[in-house]
Amino acid sequence: MASDSRTHAGVDQMSTYSKMHRLIDDPTREMTILSAGNLATSQAVVRQIRRDLTEDGEPNLKTVAHLSEAAEYIGRINVTEIGKHRKQKPKDFSPDATFILGGQIAGHPPQIYLVYPEGNYIRAAARSPYLQIGELKYGKPILDRIVTHDLALAEAVKCALVSMDSTMRSNATVGPPIELLVCETGRIGRSRHIPFDEDDDYLRELRIAWQASLKQAFEALPPVPGVKARIRLVDSADD
Amino acid sequence: MASDSRTHAGVDQMSTYSKMHRLIDDPTREMTILSAGNLATSQAVVRQIRRDLTEDGEPNLKTVAHLSEAAEYIGRINVTEIGKHRKQKPKDFSPDATFILGGQIAGHPPQIYLVYPEGNYIRAAARSPYLQIGELKYGKPILDRIVTHDLALAEAVKCALVSMDSTMRSNATVGPPIELLVCETGRIGRSRHIPFDEDDDYLRELRIAWQASLKQAFEALPPVPGVKARIRLVDSADD
Repeated sequence: MASDSRTHAGVDQMSTYSKMHRLIDDPTREMTILSAGNLATSQAVVRQIRRDLTEDGEPNLKTVAHLSEAAEYIGRINVTEIGKHRKQKPKDFSPDATFILGGQIAGHPPQIYLVYPEGNYIRAAARSPYLQIGELKYGKPILDRIVTHDLALAEAVKCALVSMDSTMRSNATVGPPIELLVCETGRIGRSRHIPFDEDDDYLRELRIAWQASLKQAFEALPPVPGVKARIRLVDSADD
Repeated sequence: MASDSRTHAGVDQMSTYSKMHRLIDDPTREMTILSAGNLATSQAVVRQIRRDLTEDGEPNLKTVAHLSEAAEYIGRINVTEIGKHRKQKPKDFSPDATFILGGQIAGHPPQIYLVYPEGNYIRAAARSPYLQIGELKYGKPILDRIVTHDLALAEAVKCALVSMDSTMRSNATVGPPIELLVCETGRIGRSRHIPFDEDDDYLRELRIAWQASLKQAFEALPPVPGVKARIRLVDSADD
């Protein structure tokens, strides 16, 4: 799982909030959600989930038997929280939030679910092996080209970072720290949380290497037939 | 200039329409628009522009002194056409259309403008050397990495095709034929129109080469520190 940390209510009200919430993490079950959309709703949903855990509300993430039940439960809370603010309709306001739930319950395989503002949810599948929420389009092409259901974990992790890098480059409202959570089948409660700050050495190395090899790969592509190579684009922009 | 040809009113009502409209094309001035958004509005705008040309309406694309005046004029028509349908408000309906106007008037440098549904318009600039409309996010990262204002024309053309390919791969509602219009400074009225069908040899070659070199470039990236290389993603998707 990977997330950025930029939230904004308009471009001049940007702040840094983690969008990765590790909700339960013991040797028998581990569940983490990523959030996108309205920050107040996301926080309210996380707060309610944690409260149900502390106060033994029913159901809660300790009592659900399957990850799909957890998705169903989170969807219900999301609908309730969104419903409180649905009637507010200033232009461009939306209370909607979307979540990715990932985790593992002992005896079951790891799974990821995408929970919609409507409370319903979908699961990744062999032919659609990843899920995205939030500002997803800039970073989707590289995922579509690289991620398959049988990709090596280390490559999948690297691809998530490259996808984030593409998104950050094209959209100023997505930004560091980037957080990774690397989960292995069976190693419940022993997932690795890896945060990357803005000036992280590896992230910078990855960014520079990717930019250079993309440029090289692009230049090696066959030329478009019939378009003369030597003409420069005219810089008429500042006349 | 580059455009795809897929329009849709819902995914089950897809059709093929050119989005590239060569409006005026003589040795003294050349203007072409690309359209995105509501098809009825786009067609109405193009129809009005052509009618003004035929009936010597004032202004028209033959009489404007600058490309910016043409953008202003197209913006006005756009606002008028959109205004006819603004009050229709079935859910998810928008009469909005957006245009890119590109062209050259003898004695002036070539220019491109983006005309908004509100009728206002912006120009490309040295630091923002390209414009996009429609389904733009999937194809933006490669443009951001490659296109500079002093790029060779042939490379810019190739990049437009790679950007289109990325978009088509990630979004089924973008599709061939792809059309290119390659315009050179000073060669007014002699721009090259190059259509690429779905099964075009060059487009297929480009697609395969790009996929292969992206994969290679990706695999050569430095590994994420601390993530074991040999673990495979679990295919829990079909359990």
